Amino acid sequence: MKKKILTGDRPTGKLHLGHYIGSLQNRVKLQSVYDQYILVADLQALTDHFDHPAQVTQNIIEVTKDYLSVGIDPNQTTIVVQSQIPEIAALTIYYLNLVTLGQLHRNPTVKYEIQQKGYDEAIPAGFFCYPVSQAADITLFQAELVPVGDDQLPMIEQTNAIVRRFNRLYHTNVLKECQAVLSKTSRLVGIDGQSKSSKSLGNAIAISDPPEVIKQKVFQMYTDPNHIKASDPGRVEGNVVFAYLDAFHNDQEVVADLKAHYRRGGLGDVVLKNILNDSLQLLLAPIREKRNNLDAKVIKEILHQGTEKAAHLAKETMKMVRDAIGIQSF
Amino acid sequence: MKKKILTGDRPTGKLHLGHYIGSLQNRVKLQSVYDQYILVADLQALTDHFDHPAQVTQNIIEVTKDYLSVGIDPNQTTIVVQSQIPEIAALTIYYLNLVTLGQLHRNPTVKYEIQQKGYDEAIPAGFFCYPVSQAADITLFQAELVPVGDDQLPMIEQTNAIVRRFNRLYHTNVLKECQAVLSKTSRLVGIDGQSKSSKSLGNAIAISDPPEVIKQKVFQMYTDPNHIKASDPGRVEGNVVFAYLDAFHNDQEVVADLKAHYRRGGLGDVVLKNILNDSLQLLLAPIREKRNNLDAKVIKEILHQGTEKAAHLAKETMKMVRDAIGIQSF
Repeated sequence: MKKKILTGDRPTGKLHLGHYIGSLQNRVKLQSVYDQYILVADLQALTDHFDHPAQVTQNIIEVTKDYLSVGIDPNQTTIVVQSQIPEIAALTIYYLNLVTLGQLHRNPTVKYEIQQKGYDEAIPAGFFCYPVSQAADITLFQAELVPVGDDQLPMIEQTNAIVRRFNRLYHTNVLKECQAVLSKTSRLVGIDGQSKSSKSLGNAIAISDPPEVIKQKVFQMYTDPNHIKASDPGRVEGNVVFAYLDAFHNDQEVVADLKAHYRRGGLGDVVLKNILNDSLQLLLAPIREKRNNLDAKVIKEILHQGTEKAAHLAKETMKMVRDAIGIQSF
Repeated sequence: MKKKILTGDRPTGKLHLGHYIGSLQNRVKLQSVYDQYILVADLQALTDHFDHPAQVTQNIIEVTKDYLSVGIDPNQTTIVVQSQIPEIAALTIYYLNLVTLGQLHRNPTVKYEIQQKGYDEAIPAGFFCYPVSQAADITLFQAELVPVGDDQLPMIEQTNAIVRRFNRLYHTNVLKECQAVLSKTSRLVGIDGQSKSSKSLGNAIAISDPPEVIKQKVFQMYTDPNHIKASDPGRVEGNVVFAYLDAFHNDQEVVADLKAHYRRGGLGDVVLKNILNDSLQLLLAPIREKRNNLDAKVIKEILHQGTEKAAHLAKETMKMVRDAIGIQSF
């Protein structure tokens, strides 16, 4: 039997090139090797979007379209909408007993995010507890492998701590520890060059962006502020256009030549940006075409079937969990 | 349509005379006036019994037997096992977004209980969040009235704060605020005279205790340590036997005479305790007889039917809640 692997996204906007390079490409490869589940994490998205839920609910279909357009195959990958699986909440409630406030306060990822969001005393309890909910996601679907960035490693540790505590406390081995699969690609920088490419910062190129928007965003990219005339020598490091060429140009020898040319001077930003634009248009045109041909009805049916399959697995896990604790059914 | 009223107990042991006088008697009266739900709160009991779940799971049947033996009528009262209703967990997860850590930290009831239990940093997150879970219980079953002791008033306030925030945030009025019904009877003291009658302190007379255990506990009761000889004047205040006579003797004029006699001297503790014992045996004999005739199969069927009826109501509420937030079904 293939090992189960679980990834997911918070549906708070359309997916972008950062997702493509950081995880989507990888998922397309992984789906033939593993029994892959992708969780559309609407419940988790609500923990910091509860005051504008439409941004979450409306993006479930969009994100699923993104999956299918890049090559996620619903026959190989089970796409699940988190809010449709009540067992996730039920399991979270059991797990909340096995985690202390102190442990949650010390979680480095949550600590950082709380700071970023400027919550003080007003930390929503749901947001604070989301690592426990993630442990429920992972273990409910019996995932052995979880692809993550290194900033998400504390989530895997928290999950495994819960697994160990559960198994020890209830003298069982029904829960399995999971393993992080670290993504090798470093994070894609945003077009502003300031921080990583992000839906919420508006500095990302969505994989569904129309051609003219792609071009416009490429031409907005931060390059080298001291590279005034084409003849000036320019910096490659910290230059967003080169970061994207590294990630998306299909001939890295060409990119090496461009870097050398840019460094010694004589290569203007407009020429360079046109090259990147061509690369991205080439990459994204077939994806966009596929995406435009996707019917919302078909998407809903795929989500329905994925959720149904996942619900079956969820019920199986919950039965084991409840039996281990000793919860009867009436 | 009758108003819905919700009460419940944590099934951590058999119910005792404190429950009888504090709430069970009242519920027997209320069931003909209101649409009464009683929640066997096993999930809540697990928040501080997760490390010995059998104490919870085994007492679900016992507590239900206690209900029926004192006159709770399953045709008038819906008895529900909390862990059988997954919507409670699901609703709790939505509500956790609407409550801040600060609010939970300031909850006086939880604050007091955390102190009592000696949790420091090691407060289980589930225990800390239980007021949110109670808000889910109350609103899921659309309860308008909730009988509580005054120590539980912060729970009602927390529930109504969530209701108001939900309705405001999602521009709806599907959730209704509830009203506390304060129990008039003061809390019954334990046989040790030290604190209130409590399962966990082992200072309570269970309503299912056999005759010899009742007698033994009555004769262990704390009286007046300075009342050495029968002829000595004795104190009535703080005397556990009188507290129980006040609560359970069926002729309060007799109790008044006994108090006067005890105060002036000449009434020995043995005589007094025999009078109380007779009272309690008279009260509890028919309850015990009814209880002994209850079949576990019948109890399970009653819980099954109650849970099924409650599940229907739970689904109805959850649909309204999800519609208000905008959560679709796939």
